[in-house]
Amino acid sequence: MTSAPIEYADASAEVRAVYDDIMATRNTDWINNYWKVLAHHPATLRRMWANAKEVMGPGALDALTKEFIYLAVSITNGCDYCIASHGAAARNKGMSREQHAELVAVVGLANETNRHAAALALTIDERFQ
Amino acid sequence: MTSAPIEYADASAEVRAVYDDIMATRNTDWINNYWKVLAHHPATLRRMWANAKEVMGPGALDALTKEFIYLAVSITNGCDYCIASHGAAARNKGMSREQHAELVAVVGLANETNRHAAALALTIDERFQ
Amino acid sequence: MTSAPIEYADASAEVRAVYDDIMATRNTDWINNYWKVLAHHPATLRRMWANAKEVMGPGALDALTKEFIYLAVSITNGCDYCIASHGAAARNKGMSREQHAELVAVVGLANETNRHAAALALTIDERFQ
Amino acid sequence: MTSAPIEYADASAEVRAVYDDIMATRNTDWINNYWKVLAHHPATLRRMWANAKEVMGPGALDALTKEFIYLAVSITNGCDYCIASHGAAARNKGMSREQHAELVAVVGLANETNRHAAALALTIDERFQ
Amino acid sequence: MTSAPIEYADASAEVRAVYDDIMATRNTDWINNYWKVLAHHPATLRRMWANAKEVMGPGALDALTKEFIYLAVSITNGCDYCIASHGAAARNKGMSREQHAELVAVVGLANETNRHAAALALTIDERFQ
Amino acid sequence: MTSAPIEYADASAEVRAVYDDIMATRNTDWINNYWKVLAHHPATLRRMWANAKEVMGPGALDALTKEFIYLAVSITNGCDYCIASHGAAARNKGMSREQHAELVAVVGLANETNRHAAALALTIDERFQ
Repeated sequence: MTSAPIEYADASAEVRAVYDDIMATRNTDWINNYWKVLAHHPATLRRMWANAKEVMGPGALDALTKEFIYLAVSITNGCDYCIASHGAAARNKGMSREQHAELVAVVGLANETNRHAAALALTIDERFQ
Repeated sequence: MTSAPIEYADASAEVRAVYDDIMATRNTDWINNYWKVLAHHPATLRRMWANAKEVMGPGALDALTKEFIYLAVSITNGCDYCIASHGAAARNKGMSREQHAELVAVVGLANETNRHAAALALTIDERFQ
Repeated sequence: MTSAPIEYADASAEVRAVYDDIMATRNTDWINNYWKVLAHHPATLRRMWANAKEVMGPGALDALTKEFIYLAVSITNGCDYCIASHGAAARNKGMSREQHAELVAVVGLANETNRHAAALALTIDERFQ
Repeated sequence: MTSAPIEYADASAEVRAVYDDIMATRNTDWINNYWKVLAHHPATLRRMWANAKEVMGPGALDALTKEFIYLAVSITNGCDYCIASHGAAARNKGMSREQHAELVAVVGLANETNRHAAALALTIDERFQ
Repeated sequence: MTSAPIEYADASAEVRAVYDDIMATRNTDWINNYWKVLAHHPATLRRMWANAKEVMGPGALDALTKEFIYLAVSITNGCDYCIASHGAAARNKGMSREQHAELVAVVGLANETNRHAAALALTIDERFQ
Repeated sequence: MTSAPIEYADASAEVRAVYDDIMATRNTDWINNYWKVLAHHPATLRRMWANAKEVMGPGALDALTKEFIYLAVSITNGCDYCIASHGAAARNKGMSREQHAELVAVVGLANETNRHAAALALTIDERFQ
């Protein structure tokens, strides 16, 4: 039930309206496969775009920091598509090679110590509660 | 094989040297349980502190951004101890309530779309490679 | 130590007996790679088929509902082979495109809120215990 | 940054409006902790309730089947709160003890074979593509 | 739908037969909660014990090595019950404190490098295929 | 930000020093892609090699047992590169086909029972604490 991406030329008016908003919001003329495959179920396309637009825009955290967080999750889950797409998004928003290398190091270290904490059945320190 | 935390007063000289460096680096008089339980195996205590000190200090990414990344990984893995300890670390370094709320929203969204990408067997767009 | 699939023509009598039962149970003339690679270790082939036959047949849950559950787990784990094979199994048992789209939406949402629950260290409500 | 649940009596008008809709939709007079803790960030409360309402209502999949899928994901992620809350939701919608036992068996089996597939680096059968 | 453990005195003949075999195989007079809760669904109790007995007994890998592997998986999944029960099993079969400390270190390191591999989208070396 | 592997001929003196130590320690004339991609960030290359050298050498656990543990983690995380590289490492250190088959069976079983434990919200037996 993998589906071919739906291109703009073949999309319904409902789908095109979302595509148009994605391109306007991102200031680009291009849509990536995630949205073009979701388009087979327009209600999900519309819902997920509304979520992404609300959550990923700048707020108390700037847009690049949000991409760092997104990328850290995607690496932890081993999601190849998400690592590629949000790696590109982070670079577009200014991530340097050195920042990327440090992010990878932190993600690795956190995954390591997360397992130490599980293995050792650590009690949460009172000061942390 | 869970072990009681080893307090400073009961620690060997080798362990105390690491504790002293943790407290000096963090400008605090206090050591959390992770290190005090690792202390049963001094080689691991020394090695992990050397890693944490090198990876988590400011560099191309500032120290707070690194804590955001660490927390995002810990939430994704469901590590209660790590969420508590690195949530506290992030607050100590200035994380606001609003930033925390946005981080949680991004982590949730990323975990959602990571599964969409897997379910739909998305092909990585050429522009992302 | 990845191994080539063992085809029926090349299989031992012990392995053929399992293949025959798989094909008879599923009413098909075909065996997928999972079983043909497990066949290098006949004890595991036999054991896993006995498990699958017992667990996946209709019971208090019908066979299609079991495939939905299987697919939800496989998407959460990001297992490409399992998503493909159990996606096909679900379609063979009647899953519609709309049902698939809704399943993907639920799996995504559950992965999102699972992380919210971890991040917020929620106390389980008394009514749920 | 774990927060106490916000009770109805202490909630803002914006939050009460969401609580009211949750109780009306679910035909209950009660709100569980997930929503009462999200309420510290009303934008997230509103957004997540809109998502849950859209995704979890009956459609091509009935509401109980959606709870089975939600529970399967929550078990796979080891999310104690989610297992408790969606286990209760499934029971409220009619899940029997036997159905629960079969769901647990399928979730366990799927997690087992997902790792076999990874370990054996299985090639996806042509018929599944 | 969490259930109280079923004690031997309250168990059916079918369940007692499994309990008897567990105690005889393990040379003990005691049954742990996993089996006593599974006992609410005797078919699953019987099936899982048959699996555990076949898989965990000594073979090409000795029984302690199998417990190391089991513990490594349980730590990676953050399963507190499993870490406690299989940690105890490993100690009963001879795991020393030093072996435990080294196992924890290896599990942590593997989780770290697993994420590096994902982040960097490594190509599998020809020699590894 | 995936990077081409850095070959020895193109490497800086700092990177060559690590490569030389990897080859000497492993008694081989070859470096795998993990290290050659990490080499874009020499501090991480140096740090990770120091960790791997310290953690993976024989100690209270022999080197092959450590590879079994590493492989079990990598299978559980679904890390294809790591399964390939540490599968090869285990074979180089003497893992037989039968041992590999048993390891895969244990890893699968542990992932299954880990989910049973979560689903059933098991209380840790007093004897395990």
